[in-house]
Amino acid sequence: MTSIVEVVLTGPPAAVVAIVRILLNQRLIASAQIADVRSSYWWSGSIESAKEARATMRTRTEVVPELLEVANREHPYEVPGIIVLPVIDGNVDYLQWVRNETSPSVT
Amino acid sequence: MTSIVEVVLTGPPAAVVAIVRILLNQRLIASAQIADVRSSYWWSGSIESAKEARATMRTRTEVVPELLEVANREHPYEVPGIIVLPVIDGNVDYLQWVRNETSPSVT
Amino acid sequence: MTSIVEVVLTGPPAAVVAIVRILLNQRLIASAQIADVRSSYWWSGSIESAKEARATMRTRTEVVPELLEVANREHPYEVPGIIVLPVIDGNVDYLQWVRNETSPSVT
Repeated sequence: MTSIVEVVLTGPPAAVVAIVRILLNQRLIASAQIADVRSSYWWSGSIESAKEARATMRTRTEVVPELLEVANREHPYEVPGIIVLPVIDGNVDYLQWVRNETSPSVT
Repeated sequence: MTSIVEVVLTGPPAAVVAIVRILLNQRLIASAQIADVRSSYWWSGSIESAKEARATMRTRTEVVPELLEVANREHPYEVPGIIVLPVIDGNVDYLQWVRNETSPSVT
Repeated sequence: MTSIVEVVLTGPPAAVVAIVRILLNQRLIASAQIADVRSSYWWSGSIESAKEARATMRTRTEVVPELLEVANREHPYEVPGIIVLPVIDGNVDYLQWVRNETSPSVT
């Protein structure tokens, strides 16, 4: 296991772009990649469909609680879809770069 | 670790859309996001390329065996590409929503 | 946990396509899916944006060190973005196929 995670956030495209920007500005993530997706999901007893964006963001494990707080506050949905995947290995220079760009000393 | 996973399924776009619909209807997933991808892979000794779709689906760990059975049966490939990634954290309300939407009491 | 991982590599689209091809040819991956993404990241003190490609590649855990060496050497960035996610379950035939297509006996 490394001390790095990939946080995946989905939602309306404009909102996802705005939240990514806020998280970058607050040094809560080092980078984000946004892709267009077609989502389907259960909501209030029926299956809904929507064009959404999926952001995959890299940060340190310790930062996740604060990231979740900010993202939940900024997200337009009642229940924002945010999950955290563990990163178990990678390019060591890149993993160190993620740490550097999200460390308190930089903010 | 949470009791939630992200299941990733790839294949021909129409088939992926159909399988996602079946899994949603059977409450084997709470949500899915489908993206367009360009796939390359080894098959029968040569590298093949194809336009595929990649579905990232959220469900409970306990549901995975049944999900695999249904997805394998419905998928047009001889060896369907399905993997399961662990979710170690996330928006707690969202994780609970995934549990609720895939729980036996709902089906 | 399985002995299979998903390796995620991002970068300029042409470079990602070329690196995927090299990794396939050297049997360091069994398959790859490439998606278009819009990336934002911190670099030299400011937030940069770029159109990139995101490759999600399936291979055996033991192969990762060699894969990282080759991908780092071939990637045009100073610090290539490469992370490794653990695969904890999946279609058993597919997981075996990944092992077969990346095993020494095939190369």
